[in-house]
Amino acid sequence: MKTYNVAIVGGGPGGYVAAIRAAKEGQTVALIEADQLGGTCLNRGCIPSKTLLRHAEVIEDIRSAKKWGIETGELTFSLEKMMARKDQVIQTLRTGIASLLKAGKVDVFQGWGTVQADKTIRIEGKESTVIQADSIILATGSVPFVPPISGTDAVSYYTSDTIFGISEIPESIAIIGGGVIGVEFACIFESLGTKVTVVEMANRLVPNEDPDASTVLLKTLKKKGIRVFTDTKVEAVGTRPNGKAVQITDANGVMQELAISELLIAVGRRPNLAAIAELNLTMNGPFVAVNEYMETSSKGIYAVGDLIGGWQLAHVASAEGIVAALNASGHRTAMDYKVVPRCIYTLPEIASVGLTEEEARKQGYRVKVDVYRHSANGKSIAMDQKDGFVKLIADETYGEILGVVLVGPHVTEMISTPSAFIHLEGTVEEMANMIFPHPTVSETMFEMAAKWLGTGIHS
Amino acid sequence: MKTYNVAIVGGGPGGYVAAIRAAKEGQTVALIEADQLGGTCLNRGCIPSKTLLRHAEVIEDIRSAKKWGIETGELTFSLEKMMARKDQVIQTLRTGIASLLKAGKVDVFQGWGTVQADKTIRIEGKESTVIQADSIILATGSVPFVPPISGTDAVSYYTSDTIFGISEIPESIAIIGGGVIGVEFACIFESLGTKVTVVEMANRLVPNEDPDASTVLLKTLKKKGIRVFTDTKVEAVGTRPNGKAVQITDANGVMQELAISELLIAVGRRPNLAAIAELNLTMNGPFVAVNEYMETSSKGIYAVGDLIGGWQLAHVASAEGIVAALNASGHRTAMDYKVVPRCIYTLPEIASVGLTEEEARKQGYRVKVDVYRHSANGKSIAMDQKDGFVKLIADETYGEILGVVLVGPHVTEMISTPSAFIHLEGTVEEMANMIFPHPTVSETMFEMAAKWLGTGIHS
Repeated sequence: MKTYNVAIVGGGPGGYVAAIRAAKEGQTVALIEADQLGGTCLNRGCIPSKTLLRHAEVIEDIRSAKKWGIETGELTFSLEKMMARKDQVIQTLRTGIASLLKAGKVDVFQGWGTVQADKTIRIEGKESTVIQADSIILATGSVPFVPPISGTDAVSYYTSDTIFGISEIPESIAIIGGGVIGVEFACIFESLGTKVTVVEMANRLVPNEDPDASTVLLKTLKKKGIRVFTDTKVEAVGTRPNGKAVQITDANGVMQELAISELLIAVGRRPNLAAIAELNLTMNGPFVAVNEYMETSSKGIYAVGDLIGGWQLAHVASAEGIVAALNASGHRTAMDYKVVPRCIYTLPEIASVGLTEEEARKQGYRVKVDVYRHSANGKSIAMDQKDGFVKLIADETYGEILGVVLVGPHVTEMISTPSAFIHLEGTVEEMANMIFPHPTVSETMFEMAAKWLGTGIHS
Repeated sequence: MKTYNVAIVGGGPGGYVAAIRAAKEGQTVALIEADQLGGTCLNRGCIPSKTLLRHAEVIEDIRSAKKWGIETGELTFSLEKMMARKDQVIQTLRTGIASLLKAGKVDVFQGWGTVQADKTIRIEGKESTVIQADSIILATGSVPFVPPISGTDAVSYYTSDTIFGISEIPESIAIIGGGVIGVEFACIFESLGTKVTVVEMANRLVPNEDPDASTVLLKTLKKKGIRVFTDTKVEAVGTRPNGKAVQITDANGVMQELAISELLIAVGRRPNLAAIAELNLTMNGPFVAVNEYMETSSKGIYAVGDLIGGWQLAHVASAEGIVAALNASGHRTAMDYKVVPRCIYTLPEIASVGLTEEEARKQGYRVKVDVYRHSANGKSIAMDQKDGFVKLIADETYGEILGVVLVGPHVTEMISTPSAFIHLEGTVEEMANMIFPHPTVSETMFEMAAKWLGTGIHS
């Protein structure tokens, strides 16, 4: 039986990053993956959706450019070519991960791994085998959750796992779920000319994010012609002679039926527990419970990523993977969740870091919030993208920055600036004293900090 | 004679920002502007060029999108509409500045101001008047510098001041000067279908920036079909029956004549000294000398922006304007140039902050440099923009971050992240410990820091 210092089950952004990091610590490492390297993020998540959103961005720009004096003829799409590009992007990155693992001398096993209490792992693939490791890192991720809606057994629908396999641009689509995945796909399909309807049970889109961000997002989705139902429950789905139907009930109890050609269910994800069926781990609701060292209730067995719940973000899984890899390699490193950026790649984008206003108040801070709108920002006006804003959530006592929300073009690339301030414990005053380049959208962070202090220039 | 606490000559990003800040400090403020509020930056610089570069970006995306499956018919441009949009952007921002000045109760005088040693200012405009102030801030900016090239008296040419008035897309253009202004206009004209030639005297484009950034820029400009001559001197310009001609000599002494339809001279800017002709200020070469409080050799008279040389960037002028305004209002604040971001809005963009590698070595640091290329970054691949890189210049002793260079899409919006690390004295290790969102281009900064430390994941 082959033995390793560290064995990792799952080759997504939690697992493969842990594998490379453990290898850099001098450990012998095995990585077990049942499907494709890169996990959900690379194969059925972040990367393919961002590739298609890049297309959506360009299509939106082409539409805007007409009124700037840049005229194109008729716009046509080849879904086949778009999907081929997406596949090529995935293939490039998958090959990259394989090369990195090879360079790190990580043994990659193709198959389903099942972990035993004695830290052996039974791997069932083309060839089955058993390995053993001193430490094990569980990184098996999650799968789409399909809620018990009447009719789902009789009607075909897509999930975020299968939607990338769509072969024709649908005439219309209903997206059940107005969270991150739902709104990103709403933008993708709208850009392709599909009539899009989003149905969300909560009283606003992206209910886990800042309420003002939800408001801007709702406004811009509606401007694009996307129908949005919030506070609305899906009662049933079914087929009709010309397509499919979704029956919904709004907050006032009014029912209606939406006639659509395709259906996407995107209401959340549940952990993939296949690898731990034979372990008796302490759970945290549906998720595997871990301590701050990412260790489960079984000594030497760590868990990271979607499997343990929490943020369910690729970069969090990677950060947890690094912590687990270090601890599995003999270090003692605790995971720190103070700086976790959250990104939504709609048009405009939404990005936030740190505490929300509500969380900050609950934690007892003397919260003072200020908002600066992009409508007065030179670069936003030059870009003709003025719908965004920046919001600063800070404690009045010493000007400690607690949280920042950014809405606007490319803010997912800008959120690391307030991240750095929170990470390095910079104050509002220090932010207001820093020189931001002109003309940029990022300057609005200077304005936001200066406005919070009462010394703003453009406010 | 009307008197003020603070009078400011020049309504550009140095002057108007100083005016608003002084007003917020409770001062009575006069602002004198001979032309339009917003100065070079808003009327003939940053803002109009970024508006046209936004068009260039979209045009480039339309070209790229063909191979992704997004087909448009023939692309046509209306220069008239583009310029109208540019004018509208300028008008919006100019109105914004006027409103802010009004809200701050700043008296705006339209006319040429000439400052006397007794702190009176003679204003010559439609109506002439004289005012006096306790403190004066000089913010008169700069004008394009036209070098003594043979033939410039006999041939029509554009400068960065006049190029925005161009009424037809030229068939071809020669741009003398491969600095920031030159390369940005090269991208603008190339996007419109103009055949562009750039002639630079130094041995590389943007010679004040990182050499590797110059290399990437040269490669991408050439890929677009822009002709670039470096190490090349312009001997003469002249007219020909079918257009204009530029005679150049390369480093080997080989001469040739370029046949072109239009000519743009963009080799630098010289200070506008009109307002101080009657003062006897100490100079710093062609510029007005100031101390760290932005005070000139004449007590109570401050100077900021292009007039004092240095970076000649709008955001530096604004920062200096704030320092001058505070000091003119009774504070004692020194200007800090440690964090000065520099941005070039070509495609790809270039942004840097802190010391260059050369400067860091000269200052005696134990410099260690690492570079991480975007070609392995998921978001860059998804965007089909893989030509960029990130470069970290840090001191080996404690991992102090000295300088960072970013090349790639939207990096002008990202440079404030390393700015924050330098501003708050964060180390390379602290950068490598921060969670960056996935998938973003900004993640390459994590990779860069981790690679520098030898713990990189994707390197």
